[in-house]
Amino acid sequence: MAFFDNKERTNIEELGEFGLIDHLTKNIKLNRKSSVKGVGDDAAVLDFRDKKTLISTDLLLEGIHFDLAYTPLKHLGYKAVQVNLSDIYAMNGTASQVTVSLGLSSKFPLEAVEELYEGIYLACEKYNIDIVGGDTSSSKQGLVISVTSIGYANEADIVYRNGAGEGDLICVSGDLGGAYVGLQLLEREKQIYLENPNVQPDLEGKDYIVERQLKPEARKDVIALLKEIEVKPTAMIDVSDGLASEILHICRQSNKGCVLYEDKIPLDPMTYETAREFNLDPTVCALSGGEDYELLFTVKQADYEKIKFKMDISIIGYITEPSAGCNLVTKSGNSHPIKAQGWNAFRPAS
Amino acid sequence: MAFFDNKERTNIEELGEFGLIDHLTKNIKLNRKSSVKGVGDDAAVLDFRDKKTLISTDLLLEGIHFDLAYTPLKHLGYKAVQVNLSDIYAMNGTASQVTVSLGLSSKFPLEAVEELYEGIYLACEKYNIDIVGGDTSSSKQGLVISVTSIGYANEADIVYRNGAGEGDLICVSGDLGGAYVGLQLLEREKQIYLENPNVQPDLEGKDYIVERQLKPEARKDVIALLKEIEVKPTAMIDVSDGLASEILHICRQSNKGCVLYEDKIPLDPMTYETAREFNLDPTVCALSGGEDYELLFTVKQADYEKIKFKMDISIIGYITEPSAGCNLVTKSGNSHPIKAQGWNAFRPAS
Repeated sequence: MAFFDNKERTNIEELGEFGLIDHLTKNIKLNRKSSVKGVGDDAAVLDFRDKKTLISTDLLLEGIHFDLAYTPLKHLGYKAVQVNLSDIYAMNGTASQVTVSLGLSSKFPLEAVEELYEGIYLACEKYNIDIVGGDTSSSKQGLVISVTSIGYANEADIVYRNGAGEGDLICVSGDLGGAYVGLQLLEREKQIYLENPNVQPDLEGKDYIVERQLKPEARKDVIALLKEIEVKPTAMIDVSDGLASEILHICRQSNKGCVLYEDKIPLDPMTYETAREFNLDPTVCALSGGEDYELLFTVKQADYEKIKFKMDISIIGYITEPSAGCNLVTKSGNSHPIKAQGWNAFRPAS
Repeated sequence: MAFFDNKERTNIEELGEFGLIDHLTKNIKLNRKSSVKGVGDDAAVLDFRDKKTLISTDLLLEGIHFDLAYTPLKHLGYKAVQVNLSDIYAMNGTASQVTVSLGLSSKFPLEAVEELYEGIYLACEKYNIDIVGGDTSSSKQGLVISVTSIGYANEADIVYRNGAGEGDLICVSGDLGGAYVGLQLLEREKQIYLENPNVQPDLEGKDYIVERQLKPEARKDVIALLKEIEVKPTAMIDVSDGLASEILHICRQSNKGCVLYEDKIPLDPMTYETAREFNLDPTVCALSGGEDYELLFTVKQADYEKIKFKMDISIIGYITEPSAGCNLVTKSGNSHPIKAQGWNAFRPAS
């Protein structure tokens, strides 16, 4: 679990800021027509013609958002890009560019930065994203990653959080809670390792949920599917803070209420089993766990036929008038108000 | 010099992430036509119609880019925005929006964040900039500020670094070296304070250079002037790392050489005197000091008449063929190659 031992080390100071930037960016190719000018001037120049420009930004800080004890740098770079792209897809847009800024502590040799960048490049290549800018600096305080994602959409295609209408169906892609349960597993193995460094981490058979935590995928494919079946959601958000927090955002901004059905919330069997091992309620993991980066959206009832048999989409409830509030109907048939107890960046678990 | 004593403290944890974001963003108004949707959805939506979109980003880290011992938070917020807008103006563009991400250590009470935001708002108000997004988190590692600035320009108006032609005149706005000398002064007063906290800082009569360091202004006015007198620079860059580093960027990217005249480099008398007090060469402060955020640009000789008597613009040299190299002609008439010894974020002075 020690990423900085037994490896070749090249000191970043020797390269200097411009040397490092040159080294990291020399292989960047611009593939997007909309990328007029990328790295190397005061600002990037982009051309979205008659489309609207979409911009979103996320800050990832060591010790708050990630723990280098169990996060491989390549995965971290990959994830840093994915979580940002996810916001552009959540607007029903096309993600096209990112800027990547890094603050690097002196413990980072060049080889570590290259690993981080490998993950960044991989994510960009896979999703056809151009890297068009950024900033690089030393940090006295651990690793800092700031990514801004840029995309575009036709005005008529953009989906906001505030468009949910009464009777609309609430849908979610993929399954939920896995990233949170994966994190619990990694935290447990870290504790065991700290107590006895000779014990090897036991993640056998847990690949899926570990990957959900370490290497999430933004749901570009879901946006493509919705386009293909000609469904435009009435509201959409990505699930970064947990299902409860996100559905409350949609309901508050749409001035509506909702009913969710516990037995409709999609859970992977491994998420379910592992949550049980940790004495966690799997439904609570889905509601409050966060970091699944699935898409939560509402569609008109008229679109039910188009969406009902789509493999990777679950219908989990419906939108109501606001006075009914936001409620979860449990498996036993009781109804409880939904509360946001999502991940709070000001109260880190560790 | 202690900013966190004797003040009311409200713990940020009590508000939580969404509470803090709501608190800080509730008064944001969007003034720009191009701001379709700002804070509050997954991404901002911007409309630049037939213009090109410009994007630039900077990361500011405590202990590397600023020292809270002598940087008032309001000034810091102001500066964080200005240094980003400067990059958009350096493309000859109009800056229109920013996103602001903050990582806040637990020593920061809400009142401190509000002071920081006051400076951010002030800069945005003064330059007609909409805040359209961001990210807020706690930080285990001191204050982290990441700003992305967004702007637009007609394709034909954009000025890159690579357009300088042989014989073009090299111009710079304002005066240089002041921000660096101001920093020396603040560092000296900090040391005196640390040795004897009863000694009051002696910055009397040094307002100008202290302000150059703590509260720089992006040269939006210079861009407006150039438009008014119908001069389009052939190349342009903002002076963030010192005159030497910036002119070398222009020459390398334009594949040209240059001659700069030491006696033409604009220095404020206070910069000159204070540099002397510190036994520093004032010219070296201008060449290698950085953080002046003036605009360095080249214009065709045909534009000489339009530009020669402009109050705030100095002509400091000319562009040559590349084989001649980049040289400084000193006051004594000698010629020396220009070397970049600008500020290196991987070798902080302190």
